[in-house]
Amino acid sequence: MNKIYMDHIAGNPVSEEVMDAMLPYLKDVYGNPQSMHLFGEEAKEAIEEARGKVAELINAKPGEIYFTSSGTESNNFALKGIVPAYAKKGKHIIISAVEHQSVLYSAKALEKTGCSVSYVPVDKYGVVNPEDVLKAVRPETVLVSVMYANSEVGSIQPVAEIAKAVREKGIIFHTDAVAAAGNIPVDVEADGVDSLSMSASQFYGPKGAGALYIRKGTRVIPFLDGGIQEEGRRAGTENIPGIAGMGKAAELAKREMYNRSARLKVLRDTLLKQLPEKIDRIYPTGHPEKRLPNHASFCVEFIEGEAMLLNLSMEGIAVSSGSACTSRALKSSHVLKAMGVDDAVAQGSVVMSMGISNTGDDIRRLLEVFPPIVDKLRKMSPLYTKHLNAQKRGGDK
Amino acid sequence: MNKIYMDHIAGNPVSEEVMDAMLPYLKDVYGNPQSMHLFGEEAKEAIEEARGKVAELINAKPGEIYFTSSGTESNNFALKGIVPAYAKKGKHIIISAVEHQSVLYSAKALEKTGCSVSYVPVDKYGVVNPEDVLKAVRPETVLVSVMYANSEVGSIQPVAEIAKAVREKGIIFHTDAVAAAGNIPVDVEADGVDSLSMSASQFYGPKGAGALYIRKGTRVIPFLDGGIQEEGRRAGTENIPGIAGMGKAAELAKREMYNRSARLKVLRDTLLKQLPEKIDRIYPTGHPEKRLPNHASFCVEFIEGEAMLLNLSMEGIAVSSGSACTSRALKSSHVLKAMGVDDAVAQGSVVMSMGISNTGDDIRRLLEVFPPIVDKLRKMSPLYTKHLNAQKRGGDK
Repeated sequence: MNKIYMDHIAGNPVSEEVMDAMLPYLKDVYGNPQSMHLFGEEAKEAIEEARGKVAELINAKPGEIYFTSSGTESNNFALKGIVPAYAKKGKHIIISAVEHQSVLYSAKALEKTGCSVSYVPVDKYGVVNPEDVLKAVRPETVLVSVMYANSEVGSIQPVAEIAKAVREKGIIFHTDAVAAAGNIPVDVEADGVDSLSMSASQFYGPKGAGALYIRKGTRVIPFLDGGIQEEGRRAGTENIPGIAGMGKAAELAKREMYNRSARLKVLRDTLLKQLPEKIDRIYPTGHPEKRLPNHASFCVEFIEGEAMLLNLSMEGIAVSSGSACTSRALKSSHVLKAMGVDDAVAQGSVVMSMGISNTGDDIRRLLEVFPPIVDKLRKMSPLYTKHLNAQKRGGDK
Repeated sequence: MNKIYMDHIAGNPVSEEVMDAMLPYLKDVYGNPQSMHLFGEEAKEAIEEARGKVAELINAKPGEIYFTSSGTESNNFALKGIVPAYAKKGKHIIISAVEHQSVLYSAKALEKTGCSVSYVPVDKYGVVNPEDVLKAVRPETVLVSVMYANSEVGSIQPVAEIAKAVREKGIIFHTDAVAAAGNIPVDVEADGVDSLSMSASQFYGPKGAGALYIRKGTRVIPFLDGGIQEEGRRAGTENIPGIAGMGKAAELAKREMYNRSARLKVLRDTLLKQLPEKIDRIYPTGHPEKRLPNHASFCVEFIEGEAMLLNLSMEGIAVSSGSACTSRALKSSHVLKAMGVDDAVAQGSVVMSMGISNTGDDIRRLLEVFPPIVDKLRKMSPLYTKHLNAQKRGGDK
């Protein structure tokens, strides 16, 4: 059985070129970048080269890039690092209702330290209206955080508009660009953001490597204390192989972005069009156009997402049912809830995220395998039986 | 010119076996461990296997091991995670005066949140007296942190004694075992510690991988918020290649520890004996016997450590002058200061940390190259000239 991987938003293989960029820093260049000898210098150079490449991907200056261990750490760093640094101004922050858990729970952690948090609603596509952000602003608001693109429903937010509105009021704007950076054009200058999270594994870099962009002049307290690494803001011996891999992956992402996107959009659009033709009562989620190029997401009524996922997994096809960070917790999605999706429908969430290795054949196989799985599962679903009975009685509710 | 690396305490190459353990998780097993499909399961298994091996190295249970990105993160996690969890009991902590910067500055960060910190002195060998710890205890003391072994002077602390005394008083005991774990026997049960930091790169695992042991039942608030990884205490997609590498390195460290130590002790003792025979006014630092098996450290009077380090580097030999985490900051060592070493002497700190690749030939070359460097540098030292003049006048101060 050919295994088909369509969960690229949860994790990616590293490309050969990325691997080649990493290996020397495991084997041969093993000095500590902070050591003042020849072995240290080589390692230091590797980090600064990678920093330049990551900066280039998002049009930042190298000195504005801080390496972290994940997108989640970047978001924790941004919120827990920036907000307390502006405590004298105030302790109110605004986040969207569809943020990733790492923003959501960092905000909740801040609440425990005396901050208050406002949540901005989204429309049925999961998109934030910049005016709703402005409505939530108070004199003591210090930071607004709205993600760049949503990993569960694929929608891209009007980040530049929100950033402009927010920064005109002297408020720091952070965006979680983990699902976006490396996949769609992200430009910290054009978008006008103050702080931005990214993760290498979202663009074929290694797991364990992330970065936080912080605009020069933005105040931030250190996130990891204890060394002079990353300007003293993120101490700890650097993950040099990971950082070198992230640098190479950023370089490739910048170069290949257009081609990768163009190809993936075709696969995505095939799914978005054909699955609803083959399956009854399947609803695409997220914005129909303003969405990640590799991302197709749906809710299938009367079935649980996990059941579809496990049945597809038995056929060798890997998809997801929402955010990997909480999938094993089997909670229903706060994103779909915020979009107004009915709880019963939201349970049937399924996300297909394609990557450079996926082909038209993969899509054809999914289109062939998935509808019978849905049929099979629905036959076992008490809700579906109820629905059919209601239909027989003449009312299709 | 043959390059000789004697800065293993700052960074290590990964061994072939560790590399082999990592590669599959970069290339082939790229699923997210939290994903509920076949790709996710493989990754999850890799993490749990590694957790078991790391636990075994320190005689912990697998469920007590939390993976982090570095020893520094582990120390931040321990202090900033455990101390606030006991806020109702009190806000006083005790640390030794010779802790690594990641403990020292985490304690300072806690001070900013209303905690008070007591610093326990050390003797001339850099060793803590358990009675001094007890003297510092107050009713509101919640945590004591004393490192296992010091990376700058090599001394091993009486951790089991301190832990016993502290825990009898119902106080949590944390130890930074970054320099110790994997190099000397560390046993959380025999030592009786509640929390312990370690770093993979200290025992030939990859950079970017660390772990924190937290004894079952110890309260701790999450360090990274946002996902269910690591029992929800350290969110973020796991660095699977790094974790797999750490697991393999832990397995090898446990198996090879005795042989590695026995061989390295010979090299260490050669340096400790012969350098003082070849160089005037060089003083070994740290405990003469209770020290890391691969660690020789000295202060050379009248010269700056950095000058020795750079001159040795030009000869292809890498040593350090203290902690890599702050070496570029060129501050004088708080460890040597706490040991009562005169500031002028402390400036001449030099640390040689040997590893599995070092041979007797490396030691012979260092013994040949180093004394002439010291001579050369002293000739350029105003302090030394002053000293010689004083000697000529009859007084050797």
